[in-house]
Amino acid sequence: MTSYIARRRVDWGDCDAAGIVFYPNYFRWMDSVFHELTESVGFDQRRLQEEFSLLGTPLADAGCSFKAPARYGDDLEVAVAVTRVGESSLSLLYRFACGERAVAEGREARVFVQASVSGLAKAPIPAPLRQKLERLHAG
Amino acid sequence: MTSYIARRRVDWGDCDAAGIVFYPNYFRWMDSVFHELTESVGFDQRRLQEEFSLLGTPLADAGCSFKAPARYGDDLEVAVAVTRVGESSLSLLYRFACGERAVAEGREARVFVQASVSGLAKAPIPAPLRQKLERLHAG
Amino acid sequence: MTSYIARRRVDWGDCDAAGIVFYPNYFRWMDSVFHELTESVGFDQRRLQEEFSLLGTPLADAGCSFKAPARYGDDLEVAVAVTRVGESSLSLLYRFACGERAVAEGREARVFVQASVSGLAKAPIPAPLRQKLERLHAG
Amino acid sequence: MTSYIARRRVDWGDCDAAGIVFYPNYFRWMDSVFHELTESVGFDQRRLQEEFSLLGTPLADAGCSFKAPARYGDDLEVAVAVTRVGESSLSLLYRFACGERAVAEGREARVFVQASVSGLAKAPIPAPLRQKLERLHAG
Repeated sequence: MTSYIARRRVDWGDCDAAGIVFYPNYFRWMDSVFHELTESVGFDQRRLQEEFSLLGTPLADAGCSFKAPARYGDDLEVAVAVTRVGESSLSLLYRFACGERAVAEGREARVFVQASVSGLAKAPIPAPLRQKLERLHAG
Repeated sequence: MTSYIARRRVDWGDCDAAGIVFYPNYFRWMDSVFHELTESVGFDQRRLQEEFSLLGTPLADAGCSFKAPARYGDDLEVAVAVTRVGESSLSLLYRFACGERAVAEGREARVFVQASVSGLAKAPIPAPLRQKLERLHAG
Repeated sequence: MTSYIARRRVDWGDCDAAGIVFYPNYFRWMDSVFHELTESVGFDQRRLQEEFSLLGTPLADAGCSFKAPARYGDDLEVAVAVTRVGESSLSLLYRFACGERAVAEGREARVFVQASVSGLAKAPIPAPLRQKLERLHAG
Repeated sequence: MTSYIARRRVDWGDCDAAGIVFYPNYFRWMDSVFHELTESVGFDQRRLQEEFSLLGTPLADAGCSFKAPARYGDDLEVAVAVTRVGESSLSLLYRFACGERAVAEGREARVFVQASVSGLAKAPIPAPLRQKLERLHAG
């Protein structure tokens, strides 16, 4: 099941001295693609802040399995699936491929938060965004 | 059990527009601390390449649970445990804390590799390094 | 005079705690756009290495003037001009704009290098690439 | 003249596929060392915000000349000089060296800013910080 497809080019500076992608960049791409996905249904981070008083959508957990190295110049397709829509949390799966070659499979668990006296507090996903995410989740 | 302790300061540029650490940086720190750990027992990446003909120690899998946000100026203690020493693989646990506050807990599974016709192939951990890692593993 | 136009979206993770682009990212974009420009005329870094035995195109000098802040979600247009084609060096100008708003103006001076006993040595720009670059320079 | 000395280790992930530092990292180090310098005289970014209502110290201009490549594992000494203290601006020079080898020489021109209706507006350097900076400038 795929909710959204994005593309990312592997830049020269994304690679390490062994000539393969420096792995934290996969997480940078996941974060970037997450924002692209929310924007594709009309909710950028600014709107979440201004209209819904949210502070952001930080991570509770993130992980990635690396299947084959990617290198400078590779064009990666990132197929995202919204795998769970909770009360104030969201889970996503990101499959990175370069043509037929599976490159990596990442997961994010995000929490919607607002400011609180102690710093950050969970907040329900705004209803109109929830509706969009559930539609993506249903495929 | 802790095999090694490192410290990292949260820089201004490590934080995002919500004022908390942009999460891929935890993985960047894990990678950096991994190299610091191997250097502490006499094996930097250059020696692995030149003396043992390895290409590097790329990731098979990585993950992180985020427990409390860290912010600009926070001094993080990173306690590393070598949790498994395999034939050609290595597992590590990284606990990030800011004073008493647990910030994040990360995991890496790394594979020692050499160049091969098809790109990368598993290689046994060099015996003298394995000995050091097993000592760290035993605590 | 503009030799090439690229676009870059400002990602959430590109911004700092003041909500504006963390400035080293402009240099990351310049490097990325430089590679995009050379690819647009058929010369990626891999071809430079394999066909022309070059090690790369490192910087002799780089700089940037910042005119107006850019923020998360901004779509930047990067207009590049090849301002000089030397024997083994190349100068480029990058004008970043967000719509009508001038955001930044960057400069790179690059040197084509090959491996040498002492590390890196200047190498002439390969003739077929020079031809392409001079055409871009002439506008 | 040197106002402050910092040290930075070149990490594995700081290098590109040619095995040398990916150049935007020098600017990341300059920013990081700038904050270290202000903290060394008692002014971190948080205090500037909370006590002096500043939004930050963004760049007006930045540049770097690259003299010799630095590689994974190199220990860089960064000698900073405060070269000018203006009404609301500050200029700094950063000399990067690896042992006897001069590696790079960077410059930053920063502006102290506060929030304004149009986004950012220049603000005078707070008097107690100015005093400290002028002392560093005088050497």
